[in-house]
Amino acid sequence: MRDFSRDHRWLAINTATVRVQWPLDRIIDECARRGIRAISPWRDQVAAIGLDNIAKRLRDAGMALSGYCRGGMFPASTTEGRRRALDDNRRAVDEAKTLNAPCLVLVVGGLPGALDGAPAHKDIAAARTDVRDGIAATLAYARSVGMPLAIEPLHPMYAADRACVNTLEQALDLCDALDPQASGALGVAVDVYHVWWDPKLQAQIARAGARRLLAFHVCDWLVPTRDLLNDRGMMGDGVIDIPRIRGWMEEAGFAGYSEVEIFSAENWWKREGGEVLDACIARHRSAV
Amino acid sequence: MRDFSRDHRWLAINTATVRVQWPLDRIIDECARRGIRAISPWRDQVAAIGLDNIAKRLRDAGMALSGYCRGGMFPASTTEGRRRALDDNRRAVDEAKTLNAPCLVLVVGGLPGALDGAPAHKDIAAARTDVRDGIAATLAYARSVGMPLAIEPLHPMYAADRACVNTLEQALDLCDALDPQASGALGVAVDVYHVWWDPKLQAQIARAGARRLLAFHVCDWLVPTRDLLNDRGMMGDGVIDIPRIRGWMEEAGFAGYSEVEIFSAENWWKREGGEVLDACIARHRSAV
Repeated sequence: MRDFSRDHRWLAINTATVRVQWPLDRIIDECARRGIRAISPWRDQVAAIGLDNIAKRLRDAGMALSGYCRGGMFPASTTEGRRRALDDNRRAVDEAKTLNAPCLVLVVGGLPGALDGAPAHKDIAAARTDVRDGIAATLAYARSVGMPLAIEPLHPMYAADRACVNTLEQALDLCDALDPQASGALGVAVDVYHVWWDPKLQAQIARAGARRLLAFHVCDWLVPTRDLLNDRGMMGDGVIDIPRIRGWMEEAGFAGYSEVEIFSAENWWKREGGEVLDACIARHRSAV
Repeated sequence: MRDFSRDHRWLAINTATVRVQWPLDRIIDECARRGIRAISPWRDQVAAIGLDNIAKRLRDAGMALSGYCRGGMFPASTTEGRRRALDDNRRAVDEAKTLNAPCLVLVVGGLPGALDGAPAHKDIAAARTDVRDGIAATLAYARSVGMPLAIEPLHPMYAADRACVNTLEQALDLCDALDPQASGALGVAVDVYHVWWDPKLQAQIARAGARRLLAFHVCDWLVPTRDLLNDRGMMGDGVIDIPRIRGWMEEAGFAGYSEVEIFSAENWWKREGGEVLDACIARHRSAV
């Protein structure tokens, strides 16, 4: 297992972590001057500055991506809705390619309309069929341009509105179905926040193997957790044994970045951005 | 599948549903006069009135139990703590026996101390070992007095502080390990709120079979859900396809009560108790 205690060369910052404080161009600058080598930006943050502008800033700063957030949101209640989702995913693949991302992360979507508080139906099996079909169609295009897709299983508390892929086992079953040869074109993003509770986690990480372990996200589960979405903790402040999970990832062959992704409306989003990044660096060394 | 639309003879009320409004003796009276034939009371509600008093009131009202809430909370950070948990579970078994419950429901516990905001460690595997050992010890006693134990897998969002058994598969693996002959002494409580998201739910319900399906709890998952603990919905107000899940239960041989268990700080606990019970009856007929 790699020693993270001496430097932060394997630290990446998911830019949602400081999205409230700074626009993306500033985030790139602030990360670069702290020796942070990689980020994972969100599409809306890129669009706010301009794709080509961000691509140039990344090149100028020598900044890599650890992933691109995000494709997915496949389920819809109409054929037209499903087609729009596929179009949007194709654009996300193109953007990821322009930014030289190692993978496009997929948050696959839940029941259509649920995120707006108006679910079109209650058939989670149908939503999962939409997801499988959507990934299959997107994969055909992503493969043609050489952009790996990383399915991110989300915590079951997001099954209704954000992602109906909720365990690593389920994500890997999709990988087996859609890319049985494990070509590297389809894999998973393992976020400790979403999967730490899973009694099958160690076995499923081993099953995934290096070819399918495309991203590793960290933050922490707080007790108590006061909000389902925006109460994630800084690594070390909660109950997830992050080094143990990282050990399983590395035993399986993962050797990439450890990406910090913290949504924290009442704590970290209220602090000065530099303080947040400095905390990420310190905790990367002490608690990841 | 049984037709629930014409009457509510298979409705049971988990007494937490109206715990804010009424003490347990009043709950028994209010349920009885509405033709509700079964309840599942909590230990603290029983203790507040007195065990023998409640036992007599139940007999006088001809009221059955659909379960008794609850045993469990096995993990501890000391040998003494684990011993105290076993003693407490033995008392819970005795109370369940006095009340003629069909099963004692086990909410198995999470990381020791986490429920008080002070987790003693981050080793969920160790907590799971405590749980297995605690159930094994309690089962030996429960078997001797003829009280079935129902392991309730809780939603993964409670893994840290309430229960580190989080899927039906995991609960059934415990049943296989501790009661391989499926004697009926150990089974599961299936609460749709905790398991509805699980892609393996149908298969695991079938695996459980009638001998291990000891209880069926219903409420609904709201979108959005505003609180991790106390924002459960009335059946029909959320996104869970309850009839589909009940169908799987009945295909597997379950023929017992459908027990309504709603924790709702901002809605149902603020309404008059009679209105809540009447809504349970109506929704039992239309949405379960």
